[in-house]
Parts: sequence; C-alpha cells; structure tokens
Amino acid sequence: MDTINVTTPTGSYPIYIDEGLLSQTRLFEQYIQGDQVCIVTNGTVAPLYLSSLKDALKNWDVIDVILPDGERFKTMASMEQIIDSLIQHRFRRTSTLIALGGGVIGDLTGFAAACYQRGIHFIQVPTTLLAQVDASIGGKTAVNHPQGKNMLGAFHHPQCVVIDTQTLGTLPGREYRAGLAEMIKHGLIADPHYFDDLAQHANELKVPSSLLTKKMIRHSCDIKARIVGQDPQERGDRALLNFGHTFAHGIEKCLGYGTYLHGEAVSMGMAMATDLSVRLGLLQEGAKRRILDLLCCFELPVTVPDGLDLEQLKLAMGLDKKILEGGSRFILLRSIGHGIISEAVPEHVLDQTLRTAGCAG
Amino acid sequence: MDTINVTTPTGSYPIYIDEGLLSQTRLFEQYIQGDQVCIVTNGTVAPLYLSSLKDALKNWDVIDVILPDGERFKTMASMEQIIDSLIQHRFRRTSTLIALGGGVIGDLTGFAAACYQRGIHFIQVPTTLLAQVDASIGGKTAVNHPQGKNMLGAFHHPQCVVIDTQTLGTLPGREYRAGLAEMIKHGLIADPHYFDDLAQHANELKVPSSLLTKKMIRHSCDIKARIVGQDPQERGDRALLNFGHTFAHGIEKCLGYGTYLHGEAVSMGMAMATDLSVRLGLLQEGAKRRILDLLCCFELPVTVPDGLDLEQLKLAMGLDKKILEGGSRFILLRSIGHGIISEAVPEHVLDQTLRTAGCAG
Repeated sequence: MDTINVTTPTGSYPIYIDEGLLSQTRLFEQYIQGDQVCIVTNGTVAPLYLSSLKDALKNWDVIDVILPDGERFKTMASMEQIIDSLIQHRFRRTSTLIALGGGVIGDLTGFAAACYQRGIHFIQVPTTLLAQVDASIGGKTAVNHPQGKNMLGAFHHPQCVVIDTQTLGTLPGREYRAGLAEMIKHGLIADPHYFDDLAQHANELKVPSSLLTKKMIRHSCDIKARIVGQDPQERGDRALLNFGHTFAHGIEKCLGYGTYLHGEAVSMGMAMATDLSVRLGLLQEGAKRRILDLLCCFELPVTVPDGLDLEQLKLAMGLDKKILEGGSRFILLRSIGHGIISEAVPEHVLDQTLRTAGCAG
Repeated sequence: MDTINVTTPTGSYPIYIDEGLLSQTRLFEQYIQGDQVCIVTNGTVAPLYLSSLKDALKNWDVIDVILPDGERFKTMASMEQIIDSLIQHRFRRTSTLIALGGGVIGDLTGFAAACYQRGIHFIQVPTTLLAQVDASIGGKTAVNHPQGKNMLGAFHHPQCVVIDTQTLGTLPGREYRAGLAEMIKHGLIADPHYFDDLAQHANELKVPSSLLTKKMIRHSCDIKARIVGQDPQERGDRALLNFGHTFAHGIEKCLGYGTYLHGEAVSMGMAMATDLSVRLGLLQEGAKRRILDLLCCFELPVTVPDGLDLEQLKLAMGLDKKILEGGSRFILLRSIGHGIISEAVPEHVLDQTLRTAGCAG
C-alpha cells in the first residue's frame, strides 16, 4: 500500500493507494468518528461497490444516500437531500460521511460534511480516475449554481482518502480517459519528467493496467498533494491546478453540464491555454504539438463542437469586457512542466485562440 | 472607541465599540477587500440605518439585499437569495459582505460569505444588543432546518465587528431585554463580578443608557472573545456559552421560531439549567434566587407557557431515551460565575425541572 500525506493548515491526512482497500475494515476504523456513518454514492456506483463497503463497516450504524449520477445533480438540492437524511436519522456532530464515487459525489459529500452542524468528519473513497488523482485531494468541496460552476462551497479536508485501484476495472473507457486529462495537467504545470513518462507509456496507459496505472496515480497524487500543501487556500501557486479550467468551466456551462465529462472539457481547455501560451510567445510550437498529440492519443477532445459562439463562451467564462480590461487571470505554460499565472492576455489574442479551437463569431 | 481582539486559529480580528461608528468610512476601508460590497439587512433595520451606512461606503460599488425580519427567515432559501444577488451582480472572490442587523442577519450573511466561491470576506455590524454582545462574535454562522436550529452552518470569522451603540436607541424594549439575557449568561458561566455588576445596576440597565450600557457591552464582548479565542471550534469550554441553549432551542422549536425572541427562550432555558443545577446538588438555592430575581427584574420569562408538553419538549431538545441513557451533555452551574459541562443528569431529575418550569405531562 502506498501512502502520501497531504499537509493542511491544521494538520495532515493520508492518501492510501492499493488494490482492494474498499473492504479493509481496519483502514477505515482509524478514521471513523462516532458510531454513525452515512455513505453517499450514486446509482451507477452503488450496485458495484456499496455492498462491499457496507460489509467492511458492519461495526457501525450505516445509512446510505444514493443520488442520481451526473454533474447536473451537483446542486444545492442534492446537498440538502444528504442533510435531510442525516437529520432524519438524528446524526450527531460526532458522525462520519463517506463519499463513494467520482468527483461529483466527493464535492457534494464534502460540502455536506462541511456544513452539517458546522462541520463533521468525512472520508473520500474515489472510484473514478479523475477523482482519485485530482478531485478527492485538497479539501475543495462545492456545488454548482445554475449561473456558474462551484459557486457555493467550502474548504473542508477529509480525514483520509482511500484509493482502491480495483474500482478502475469497472470504469467506462471514456471516464477513464477523462481522468488521464487531469494527470497530463499535473505534468504540464509542475513536472516535465512525469509528462515524459505519460507520453512514453501512452499506449499502455490507454486502459488501466494495475501496476503502471497505480504508479502514475501515485505520481499525480504526489504532485497535487505538494501543491495544495504549500497553498491550501489558493492564494498563490495552487491556482496552477486550474490550468485549462477557466475555459473548461465556460464550455461546460455553455453546452450544459454533462454534455462533456469534466475531464474532456479540461482537455479542450488545456488545448486552448496551450495555444494561448504559444501566441503570447511563452511556449514553443513543438511543445504544443507534443501536448496535443498526447491528448489526442487518449482520444481526448482538443476542439469545441461546431457552432459554439465565441462571445457566449467568453461570457460563460466570466470574461466580460470590463473584467478583461481589468486584467483577468489566466494559467499559461512557459514550458512543459512549468505553469505560470498571467494577467496580461489581450482580448484579440484570446479571440484568435478561441477561433482556432473551433469557436464561431 | 473601545477595541477588543478576538483570536482565531489563523489570526485575529477586532471588535470596535462606540457611538456613531456606522458612518465612519475610515473604519470600514481597512477591512473591505475589493471594490464590490453587498450589505445584507432586513426590512426593519434598512429604513433606520441602511442609508447612513451606504453614505459611508460611497467609494465602493455597493448593492444591498433586504430580507424579511425574523428568525423564521433564517433559512437556506434566504441564504440562497443572498448568493443569487452576488452571482447576478458578478461578485468576485475579492468582494465583501456586510451584515447590518441582529443575530439572524449576522448568521445568514456569515454563512453566505463562508460558502460563496468557498469563502469571501465579511464584516459584522450588529444592531441589536444580543448580536452585539454574543451572536456577532466567534465566527459561528448558520441557518435553521425545519427539523432543528442551526443545523447547517460554518465557522467563518468576520474581518471585524463594528458595534455602533447608537443603534440601541431605536431597538424595541423587548429586543433590548432579550440581549440582557445573554449578558447575564456571560456573568453566570464565567465572571461572578460581572454578574454582581449587572445585578447592582439592574434598574439603570433596564433601558440603554449610553455610558453604562457601553461598559457592559465591552465586558460581555471581553468574556465572549476570551472563551472563543481559547476554543475556536467548540471542542471544550466554548460549550459553556451554550448555557440554557439546549432548553432554549427545544422551546423555540416546540413553539415555532419567533414566538419568543431567542434571548427570551435563553432566559427560560437558563432558569431551567439553574434549577437543574440546584436539584443535582451543584448550586445553592440562594444563588438560584438571585439569578431568577435578575431575570425577572428585566421582565425576562423564567417559565414556559401553560400546556407545553414535557415529552414533546425533550424530543425537540434532541433528548430521546437512548440519547439520555448514553449520557447527554448539559451545561450547569457550580456557582454564579462558574459553569461546568456535565453528562450525569438522570432523566427523572430533568423531568422535575421541566415540570417546575411549567411543562405538562
């Protein structure tokens, strides 16, 4: 079993990575407070893993909340559904939530744990690659608002993150590849050797192969843990993790949550941010080629669907004229492995990038 | 101007106390982040003080949200109304909320500030005595759930607390006296001399008299700041501040939020907790007499209305048989000025106290 520690302002918590962790009672018992446990999961994951996890937690009073699957259910209504269950079962302040699922379940459960009686313990059990390498680490929790992604949320750290790599065996290929997008991101912003590793093993990585995938998950968790440990509240370099994300959030909002997977939108966003970096003279054309090649090798999209309106996308990205003139923040690349934060992006250059990515207008 | 500092895990913030602070631009400008400010207030306070505060904030882009007045509007729906306004006006993460009103407005605004984009700055401008001496200090924010008070919330500290004692001039007598209940609480749990002071000046304190009231507010803020500074997350002695509150929350839930003011329910609750302390041999009968006398002197209720059902109240207090047998936590008094946390309250003694306070059944 691999263990990585995440430092927080008030302590630290471990990420455990191995096959078969879902059924290890002794791993969970160190982190469960009280005798009441609520597992939050969705209709896709529940039939696959809920009973295994419940078997491991026979010593506790366990209830579950099964939400519909998908980003469009990452809402206040779902969060309140979790809260209603906790209240109905008279959960005390000394009880524990467990998030069993992907990033949506983790974000929702974490936010419910942050707010219930002003904060209770929770454990992340991510079952998608994207949640394992990215969403479950760092304490960001949130729900979407009809007008914007992650508009309501909290920083609330889990007691631990339990990554059972066996769960990748049942993950649809498209979901798996969406997770690879965030792994590529980690290489791009912080570690050129890791990017090289991913590129070199791209063909093997197209499907989860236990040993290699586990090694790469470990590497991604390492990078993410290091960055969030240095800047837990995102006052500085943690923003690098948003590489491609301003574009991605705009795309998701324009096209409706769920049309693309989050990792797919991030792939398009990274392609755009890469193109922008080249246009601004920061990044070499050859590096851009390597990045797009790797994304395409994993069948990840690098252009937006036909007809997406340029102005509409900018608006969805929160970039109206006034904000752009005021100096909006972009995450760009100086080289592969070296992300930077820039506030000097002229609107006409941004427009060129958006048109190159397929935007109309 | 008096200044008291509240220590938090990540820094500290000041409480300013004086007449006329509401109009002091220079006081606010040190604590406002960004150029966007949203003042949250209610329909009672807005006509009295909103324009003065807005006049002081002419250098910023100011919007306001005016909610209906009352505890029954301390809901997720009101909190989301604030969020909707922020989103509609494109408030960024570097913007500031200001809570102008009593405890309900402070709790709601603080919770909205805690959640909007995972946390933005806010300033407390409490206009009721209860909010000035208690609710605005310590970072507790929350909304009620139909099934229980403050079930959803966060610990989120303001940048500063601005107590303009002039606002007490327009506070209805009943609201003013409800605030005195929390001040008595501070003396009871932590400072016998402060209780003596309040008792000695009881007649003068019946109406706000600028100098004396200001001195007492300062003393209460001092006690509250010290207790929350030592135990910000309520893992130990901060629970003493809940003296009378388990009873009070039960009463408020049974009778419907808003039937009694929160401070009035706390007064009944403190009378009950005092009676319980005597029955358990912790507190002397004479001390109980002094406590009830002071509450009554301020026309604060010390018994529940006729016909309140004993079992219903216990249920509303979250005390079912199982929980009571498991050892439920009560805040009791060992003497005036010395609160303690006890888990050894036999149910039949609790029942005697509830019957003495007027419960039927």
